[in-house]
Amino acid sequence: MISALNETHDSRTRSWVAGANDSGSDFPIQNLPFGVFSQRQGGEARVGVAIGDQVVDIAACNERGLFYGEAAEAAHACRADSLNALLALRPRCWTALRRRLFEVLRQEAAPEERQRVRLLPMSDVEMLLPARVGDYTDFYASIHHATNVGSLLRPENPLLPNYKWLPVAYHGRASSLVPSGTPLRRPKGQIRENPNAPPVFGPSRRLDYEAEAGFFVGPGNRLGEPVPIGTAEEHIFGLCLVNDWSARDVQAWEYQPLGPFLAKSFATTLSPWVVTLEALAPFRMPLASRAEGDPQPLPHLFDPDDQRYGGIALTVEVWLSSSQMRQAGIDPMLLSCGSLADLYWTIAQMLAHHTSNGCNLRPGDLLATGTISGAANSARGCLMELTRRGAEPVTLPTGEPRQFLENGDEVILRGYCQRPGAARLGFGECRGIVLPSS
Amino acid sequence: MISALNETHDSRTRSWVAGANDSGSDFPIQNLPFGVFSQRQGGEARVGVAIGDQVVDIAACNERGLFYGEAAEAAHACRADSLNALLALRPRCWTALRRRLFEVLRQEAAPEERQRVRLLPMSDVEMLLPARVGDYTDFYASIHHATNVGSLLRPENPLLPNYKWLPVAYHGRASSLVPSGTPLRRPKGQIRENPNAPPVFGPSRRLDYEAEAGFFVGPGNRLGEPVPIGTAEEHIFGLCLVNDWSARDVQAWEYQPLGPFLAKSFATTLSPWVVTLEALAPFRMPLASRAEGDPQPLPHLFDPDDQRYGGIALTVEVWLSSSQMRQAGIDPMLLSCGSLADLYWTIAQMLAHHTSNGCNLRPGDLLATGTISGAANSARGCLMELTRRGAEPVTLPTGEPRQFLENGDEVILRGYCQRPGAARLGFGECRGIVLPSS
Repeated sequence: MISALNETHDSRTRSWVAGANDSGSDFPIQNLPFGVFSQRQGGEARVGVAIGDQVVDIAACNERGLFYGEAAEAAHACRADSLNALLALRPRCWTALRRRLFEVLRQEAAPEERQRVRLLPMSDVEMLLPARVGDYTDFYASIHHATNVGSLLRPENPLLPNYKWLPVAYHGRASSLVPSGTPLRRPKGQIRENPNAPPVFGPSRRLDYEAEAGFFVGPGNRLGEPVPIGTAEEHIFGLCLVNDWSARDVQAWEYQPLGPFLAKSFATTLSPWVVTLEALAPFRMPLASRAEGDPQPLPHLFDPDDQRYGGIALTVEVWLSSSQMRQAGIDPMLLSCGSLADLYWTIAQMLAHHTSNGCNLRPGDLLATGTISGAANSARGCLMELTRRGAEPVTLPTGEPRQFLENGDEVILRGYCQRPGAARLGFGECRGIVLPSS
Repeated sequence: MISALNETHDSRTRSWVAGANDSGSDFPIQNLPFGVFSQRQGGEARVGVAIGDQVVDIAACNERGLFYGEAAEAAHACRADSLNALLALRPRCWTALRRRLFEVLRQEAAPEERQRVRLLPMSDVEMLLPARVGDYTDFYASIHHATNVGSLLRPENPLLPNYKWLPVAYHGRASSLVPSGTPLRRPKGQIRENPNAPPVFGPSRRLDYEAEAGFFVGPGNRLGEPVPIGTAEEHIFGLCLVNDWSARDVQAWEYQPLGPFLAKSFATTLSPWVVTLEALAPFRMPLASRAEGDPQPLPHLFDPDDQRYGGIALTVEVWLSSSQMRQAGIDPMLLSCGSLADLYWTIAQMLAHHTSNGCNLRPGDLLATGTISGAANSARGCLMELTRRGAEPVTLPTGEPRQFLENGDEVILRGYCQRPGAARLGFGECRGIVLPSS
């Protein structure tokens, strides 16, 4: 199910690249996440790997003869403006490329190898969407989120009967996926706050974020051929952060009976770096939320290894900065902090379930977890939960109250994995600032 | 809102192409629908136009110098394995191409022009998906369907309060769109028929079809820039038939609270020919289902022209052929017959609503109407409605009862427009046969 621990996870290994060994760096040599960049000075977009405060230009390294065998095959797929060609390859090509990079980026690499590594400062590049996403699917895998939201909408019946039997999901909108840093126009929509009056059309007044993790499909499956749970992770390349912006007032009015539509489709923000499942191996752990007495997953969702490795200890933080805070020189405020290990369903279960009816996944498809919330109040991954639908506003350092997002608010997701004995891996940031409606 | 009637709609015009003037032909010279074909003998897929029982190979005609100006620009986009490049052009390029084809295909065309037309018999080509669909959205635009289904699920409250205020929709799955003729593997899924027992995983026992029309987006809109209702049709290229196969038992268990997911994503079948909105101009009419006293659409959905032209008199028939029927040499049986004019929402309203939150549509995106049902029992566009969820089975000519689809059943959708004084336009067929679960 998961790669055996190997030298690329050794926390003692250091790199010769600037910034990679700083204790606060998101991108030590043990990480090596993939993304798509373009140079600010111009030129074609292509695939890069982050290390320290630098980006490795994989295609350029390949031209300099840095790779061979399956690593070269993978590097060849990196001369592209998306990860899709790389994702379509066999996972062992990804592994070969990552191992070769580890070899040439570590402190002990020979000078002639170092010379073949083409590095660009992160400050000189712009990060784009990691992939051309064919289909985007959003799950609802946090039982805490489902329960919290359910309590607000259906106090007598917060968790629906299907929740513990299958990973609930809906199809999302692929066209409006945007890379971190893209400003967000406050959506307009139809809203009916007073059930005795007609609905009105106007700017959403209950704009929210949702802190999620996304995972990219590597090799796909053919239509009609489900992926067994035991091999589901072989179809997953890696993870990023996702902000599934949501207009709660639009959602409340439109979502019956077919689910969320315009409440979500105006924008979904992705962090640019995709951390490979291989890099995450040291952070696998049991999922924390499946309780004694809960039903055992049906066979198509049951993997005995999940009891040890089903979860990933990825912490996802939400930070907020208001326009007043920035003017006063105040740093962003931490709103919440959740963990992927608190989900009820594993990423393998989500993927296996998705294909269980024969639905085909394609390289570059994006699956996301849904809002990551935990049992603690401080682990509530959206404002709807954090403020009890506005009833208990958050107070910002400027004294401003927040029920939902205001214009000028910037939401910043940060993610990282850390545990004693392992190098800390970061996911970078997923940012977006709210602009007024046009 | 709609093109003025012009000579390409003149019902007296005849063509020199075999079969085009037959009274039963779906593809007279007034139609000229677009699709993507490959020759059975091999060669690259490319764009074709149907006439009679022939396909015009547009790129080959262009090489022979048949087109000039904007028609040539459109023809140039037809050397492609999808309609996407053509859809991305200005609508007047589509018009120029269609008019030039009309000119050279009519009886009066000069021999030297006829010689430049490259025709292939339909029997020599295989039809593929018309477009690479970036996102597929399925609406719920028939108030009769919504009411019929609602009565079965919520007898006390069949039509939800939002129905008459906005066109309800959900995001569908783009990866599993398949062309007409693709066999359908009966999906497995999680089903809970007995609420006092655990759910089980197995082949769906309530497999259904849904007779719909789909429409393809031409030029898209930028993220954050809604399309006004008054210009929405400029973003619509044309229509096809859609069978949104549905596993009702899977749907009933999974769909709360986020809507349909695996109950629909195993396959959706499209007819291969896209009939242009321009060809449909003679068949525009008022929508029939908006009743006195219903709310006036809010401004972003209100177009005064809808009272005359909002609907399209497209008849959609559903035919069924069982394996026993085919063995006995019995022709398919007509199950139902509905009309697009019975919808509650126009295609322009669906498109404008879709973008009203700023969501971007891209050329080749597919929007579908949802099941087309009318007020009459004979106009119920799925078995769920037709058999009252299995309570009133349909009897086939062999005496077989049908509550839901059985293995070996073939469902055939046929669509056409006809009215006195206009040439009859057909949509061809949308077919699929049910195979057993693997």
